[in-house]
Amino acid sequence: MTDRPVFEAATAVTPLGVPDEAGRSLWAAEVAEGWDILGNTNGGYLQAIASRAAAAAVGRPDPVTMTGHFLAPTGAGAATVDVEVVRVGRRFATARATVSVGDRAVLTTLGTYGDLSEPDDDAPTLVTSVPPELPDPDDCVAHEPGGGPLPPAFAGKVEMRVHPDDMGFVEGHASGRALMRGWFRLRDGEPVTSHALVCAVDAFPPTIFNANLPTGWTPTVELTAHLRRRPAPGWLACEFTSRNVTGGFLEADGLVWDADGHLVAQSRQLALVSRG
Amino acid sequence: MTDRPVFEAATAVTPLGVPDEAGRSLWAAEVAEGWDILGNTNGGYLQAIASRAAAAAVGRPDPVTMTGHFLAPTGAGAATVDVEVVRVGRRFATARATVSVGDRAVLTTLGTYGDLSEPDDDAPTLVTSVPPELPDPDDCVAHEPGGGPLPPAFAGKVEMRVHPDDMGFVEGHASGRALMRGWFRLRDGEPVTSHALVCAVDAFPPTIFNANLPTGWTPTVELTAHLRRRPAPGWLACEFTSRNVTGGFLEADGLVWDADGHLVAQSRQLALVSRG
Repeated sequence: MTDRPVFEAATAVTPLGVPDEAGRSLWAAEVAEGWDILGNTNGGYLQAIASRAAAAAVGRPDPVTMTGHFLAPTGAGAATVDVEVVRVGRRFATARATVSVGDRAVLTTLGTYGDLSEPDDDAPTLVTSVPPELPDPDDCVAHEPGGGPLPPAFAGKVEMRVHPDDMGFVEGHASGRALMRGWFRLRDGEPVTSHALVCAVDAFPPTIFNANLPTGWTPTVELTAHLRRRPAPGWLACEFTSRNVTGGFLEADGLVWDADGHLVAQSRQLALVSRG
Repeated sequence: MTDRPVFEAATAVTPLGVPDEAGRSLWAAEVAEGWDILGNTNGGYLQAIASRAAAAAVGRPDPVTMTGHFLAPTGAGAATVDVEVVRVGRRFATARATVSVGDRAVLTTLGTYGDLSEPDDDAPTLVTSVPPELPDPDDCVAHEPGGGPLPPAFAGKVEMRVHPDDMGFVEGHASGRALMRGWFRLRDGEPVTSHALVCAVDAFPPTIFNANLPTGWTPTVELTAHLRRRPAPGWLACEFTSRNVTGGFLEADGLVWDADGHLVAQSRQLALVSRG
């Protein structure tokens, strides 16, 4: 894996045999060391492994909409991805992909895959979302591992620069807004593919850390990513918000914009909120 | 089916035999007549059938988060639901459910099911979304079939009252905002279950009708519903918005509030946008 870019290597999948008559195929993967938060592998990274296997199985380069349901936390280790093709159409193909580490299923997904290499910019357009206002990356806070348990190892596998106003929680000065904004890219100039976007939308610290609420761990139940286009080279501007922390649940909504100002991904996850 | 409430009857499922060793079970259902828009059955209604079969299969009363990928349009007819149990945990259970009409798969879903009968109102709470400001139902526009092809037959199966400002598209006076607000309930006082909420989030006319864009049909690729709690009796206040019509796709985000002012459902769908 030494010559491949870090993300590509860490999400590589290899077919194990040929698909069966029902279109089911098994893929070998490796949940790599260091993509974890306190020992638990990042969910978006895991989902990107599933995305790569499913896209390869259906012969389409890009996830278009992909949903993962998280079944169990996992550390690093040898993994398999079990892919079932549901439908192959002219433009899109739909498949399920389940990631198991050892013999334990940790993530099951349902996605529709296609080709985002030529976005339909002639289609009717009306965008009222706006990219977040972010200081230059050099004026943001580098979210990367230091000497302690947090920031997590995972933060060292990608590059994140967080809006200074959204990092107050680290020193006990949370803003009171369930908001997290920052820049994202992969290390060493590795291009952010549509698969890597699935990781990007789950990469930043939780919005809830800024909300001044007495809560602890907020495990993700479900994560859906819509991929609109492949990003232009450069930093991605990301914004995550939670507007409805209620009933023991929260949603975290994400928008990711590329350096050309295009919306490239939109995400939502549902997480559990427990008392801290 | 004559004594059962309309929605309950139209989404009824019956086990066909017993589950196999892998936890797979088949259910009989009926895609009922009249739940269509110009011949195409409403997606949320279809998804509610899948929700009922999956919830029954895993023995949990409520969908908590459920995603459907639409594979083909369908009319009414005898249907089956193929349910695969992925994981049964202490609090939640995860299952796939695929609806076929005749021998054609029309919808495949992935959901996590649980029990929403006792919402955790002691959990940390921070809600910044607000219910839409709606005139009284009697001062809204009844969205129901008239003499022509539209409003669709489906609109007669449930009850909808649309904000007058969001019905201008009918007479060529679209507001220019991709917004749709209104009241929803089932007919004859039938309670809105969590399964019916899955239908409610896909019931109103498309937001895009109000956007003044040269677009035609916007077929749904994917619909995700998060169910937060079972609704209190009475009208539900619903708001749907699209902020990112770009690249040939749009999202439609939904929020559904009950008569007690609680958020009961949040939804997002991804649809295709073509030139009209």
